[in-house]
Amino acid sequence: MTSETDMDWIAVDWGTTNLRVWAQDDAGRTLAHRQSEKGMGKLSRQDFEPALLELVADLLPAGGKRPVIVCGMAGSRQGWAEAPYKTVPCTPPSVEDATRVETTDPRLDVRILPGIKQMSPPDVMRGEETQIAGFLADNPDYSGTLCLPGTHTKWVALENGNIERFQTFMTGESYALYSSQSVLRHGLSADALDGAAYEAAVTRLLDKPTRFAAELFGVRAGGLIAGLTPEQASGRLSGILIGAELAAVRDVLDLSDVTLLGSDGIAKSYRTALNCLGHDARLLDAGTITLKGLALAFSRLSKVSS
Amino acid sequence: MTSETDMDWIAVDWGTTNLRVWAQDDAGRTLAHRQSEKGMGKLSRQDFEPALLELVADLLPAGGKRPVIVCGMAGSRQGWAEAPYKTVPCTPPSVEDATRVETTDPRLDVRILPGIKQMSPPDVMRGEETQIAGFLADNPDYSGTLCLPGTHTKWVALENGNIERFQTFMTGESYALYSSQSVLRHGLSADALDGAAYEAAVTRLLDKPTRFAAELFGVRAGGLIAGLTPEQASGRLSGILIGAELAAVRDVLDLSDVTLLGSDGIAKSYRTALNCLGHDARLLDAGTITLKGLALAFSRLSKVSS
Repeated sequence: MTSETDMDWIAVDWGTTNLRVWAQDDAGRTLAHRQSEKGMGKLSRQDFEPALLELVADLLPAGGKRPVIVCGMAGSRQGWAEAPYKTVPCTPPSVEDATRVETTDPRLDVRILPGIKQMSPPDVMRGEETQIAGFLADNPDYSGTLCLPGTHTKWVALENGNIERFQTFMTGESYALYSSQSVLRHGLSADALDGAAYEAAVTRLLDKPTRFAAELFGVRAGGLIAGLTPEQASGRLSGILIGAELAAVRDVLDLSDVTLLGSDGIAKSYRTALNCLGHDARLLDAGTITLKGLALAFSRLSKVSS
Repeated sequence: MTSETDMDWIAVDWGTTNLRVWAQDDAGRTLAHRQSEKGMGKLSRQDFEPALLELVADLLPAGGKRPVIVCGMAGSRQGWAEAPYKTVPCTPPSVEDATRVETTDPRLDVRILPGIKQMSPPDVMRGEETQIAGFLADNPDYSGTLCLPGTHTKWVALENGNIERFQTFMTGESYALYSSQSVLRHGLSADALDGAAYEAAVTRLLDKPTRFAAELFGVRAGGLIAGLTPEQASGRLSGILIGAELAAVRDVLDLSDVTLLGSDGIAKSYRTALNCLGHDARLLDAGTITLKGLALAFSRLSKVSS
């Protein structure tokens, strides 16, 4: 078992729903990985330090001080401390842009990385900028389109390693709402999406995006009177929503060279949708990419540290 | 006080959420109006008769039998008894299309009016067809577009009093979901919509419907970094959703002659959106129009009664 006293710094991905920490050593090894459900959404300002200590107190050396590099919603106005946004066009923020937080426990040296904003059209991200930094660590000077699928999918235009502009889509959240809360829930499958129904809906939407609002209730009516199975209904709903997203994205971004940060079912659905448009896309496992971005920030800490 | 023994028949509007009854006499007068929250969504098959009797048992004469004309979701497969759909093109269903239900209480003679379906594209309605019948009672041989705003707004093409085709939009339900359950809820006003923000969003959507999916998260980002007030955010969200609906409707229906069945805020919002397209629309108070449709069905009962 690795000795916990080797721990040099702590990486923290603090989202709305979850808190994830990695105890790291200088050589880039992960000595411990822990998480809890104490996401930003459940915490008041004074709850953040105790929530972090719950996960890492036993790892901190007595008398020492360890850097804690945080990304995500902990830096929002309702978070631990507001870390003001960088503004595009810009490189991903690093530790020199971070906001330091005073802690009660003297063993913590907390620095929260900022998110990124775009003034026109207005848009924001918090957390994804650190994934982008992790991606750029392996792909410096990248130019092309990056897609980070999720509850709020981000599409990002990069040029020579710079974030030029981006656009957020609520497609994941919309699917969750319609499939669990709306009248459509009665006819959907929770387990499986029919691939053919998905592709047909994507193609139909890309063909005629104005049909979007008309298509939604058709998912229910199709099940009631036209023999649409629950798997087909789920595939169709997903295709309608992602099709509408791509119809908006293709107007403003180059889709011929897309890298998808993710390898799960959602990322594959986006690739299939891009295929319907005649484009191939690269899937890149995003599992450790946030940690990579945080490590990049830590590596620059010695250069800027007070 | 009107004697309750004058009651000749009972009109019932039985939706997913609510049950509304009117005790009527032959001269078209309402002797009593009552309602409960025992909508179809909360009931099993055996619960329907008791739920109805809760509201009307004291009005029924001992030893007599009274017609009960029902419209709405009570006629769905999960309802009291399935009343199979009529198929467009068709006139609104009347009592000769109704499904009779056996009751335990011998004083009830229950007839459930069917809904209407459209095979291509698949669509269904249950309840609105009776509002349309009520509208046609005063406007026989009407040709034009009818809009019934609500949780699931229906757009209907009528020709000489025939229902030619229709299209359902989940715009009302979508607004409710996004404003109460999604990340957008943090920046919205529950009380007031800003009219200018509403019209600007409708116009932007009609101008470029492909932007729909891109606009949604902008409601949140606008509040976070661009000074969008909660009232403006609510107006904008409403405008995005109704704009997307109109962008789909105008492809398939004539919007130059629209009658809106409704006089509340939602109906007025639709009229404003049609104005943005350069069309005027007529508002028609829908308050008693379901009762009028049910009365029309009752008036034909003597002609078809067994």
